[in-house]
Amino acid sequence: MVSSEGPKQLATGPLPDEEARWIKLVKIDYQDQTGKARTWESAERRSRPSSCDIDGVGIIAILRNAATGAQDIVLQRQYRPPIDRVSLEVPAGLIDAGETPEQAAVRELREETGYVGVVTETSPVMFNDPGFCNTNLRMVHVAVDMALPENQNPQPQLEDDEFIEVFTHPLKDLWALCQKLEAEGVAIDARVGTLAEGVLLAQQFKL
Amino acid sequence: MVSSEGPKQLATGPLPDEEARWIKLVKIDYQDQTGKARTWESAERRSRPSSCDIDGVGIIAILRNAATGAQDIVLQRQYRPPIDRVSLEVPAGLIDAGETPEQAAVRELREETGYVGVVTETSPVMFNDPGFCNTNLRMVHVAVDMALPENQNPQPQLEDDEFIEVFTHPLKDLWALCQKLEAEGVAIDARVGTLAEGVLLAQQFKL
Repeated sequence: MVSSEGPKQLATGPLPDEEARWIKLVKIDYQDQTGKARTWESAERRSRPSSCDIDGVGIIAILRNAATGAQDIVLQRQYRPPIDRVSLEVPAGLIDAGETPEQAAVRELREETGYVGVVTETSPVMFNDPGFCNTNLRMVHVAVDMALPENQNPQPQLEDDEFIEVFTHPLKDLWALCQKLEAEGVAIDARVGTLAEGVLLAQQFKL
Repeated sequence: MVSSEGPKQLATGPLPDEEARWIKLVKIDYQDQTGKARTWESAERRSRPSSCDIDGVGIIAILRNAATGAQDIVLQRQYRPPIDRVSLEVPAGLIDAGETPEQAAVRELREETGYVGVVTETSPVMFNDPGFCNTNLRMVHVAVDMALPENQNPQPQLEDDEFIEVFTHPLKDLWALCQKLEAEGVAIDARVGTLAEGVLLAQQFKL
């Protein structure tokens, strides 16, 4: 049952390190380019598998319709407590121990959206905000063939605590969508926003 | 003087909340879509001006050469203690109290790179990792006219603790640059990496 009030923050307060289960603050002693000793403050997830160099994957899933030539990107809207807003994102997920990024991407796409696809490209490791934290991901590109029967009526398999709205949009108009949704109060994930900027710049400069 | 060893982490350890000056952990009580009370853990900067809804700006500075038609993007390499690596980034900076994003972008670009430009576009607010933290920015697009005398030999004005290498690269080849630099051990900032992905996808799909 969805509450008519919708999700929202009720209270925020300091989180002592000994109570934190998922994230932590880290003090870093380092030497700079001149050899001088300095300190830096960083935030980290506690959940990254020790066998793994990334926290998770983002998924650039493109629906390919050979009949129409359309290329639509799979997007999500999801409430995010840290920003107390619904955020426009690409499908994503943390890596399970023993998984490759490509396996995690295909699994998460199927679970979160119902679409079945094949990996076409894996990005370099990307760091979300490397002056502030060490969180990172690989973007995995997945082609979703809309001629396949399993993609005609995709059914997400969400956990009880996952509330994710899935939709698709023409990739060529992603920048305009970001502007429209921001005007409606939706927060734009930087991974979606800068992807849209790249498409926009390529169109503007005819790259 | 630059040390032959280069910058590097010397030690890392827990950072108690009462010692942290720049960042903090936050415990969030919220209600989900069904009205059920839940908690979330988030990280935040302490430096965001109270008058401001963003932490900073990223700068997409494009050098425009009318004679050759080239469009080169201004990029930086900078050591980042949270990831103990040199990171490929766009110029960026925190917003000073009272500044608009556009003023901050023009100022930071001049200080960090020496280039003088004019703002052509400002992005929606983008959140770097909204499941983990509230850090955010606007991307400001700046056109740098290479016919202007002040852009012939740009001189950065860096602080004593800033060590930033500035260079430019054809925007149309940004994806290949990310792959090449990762192979050389450079970390890729997600704001650069997904921008490159957007250009790549627009080229692949002829958007």
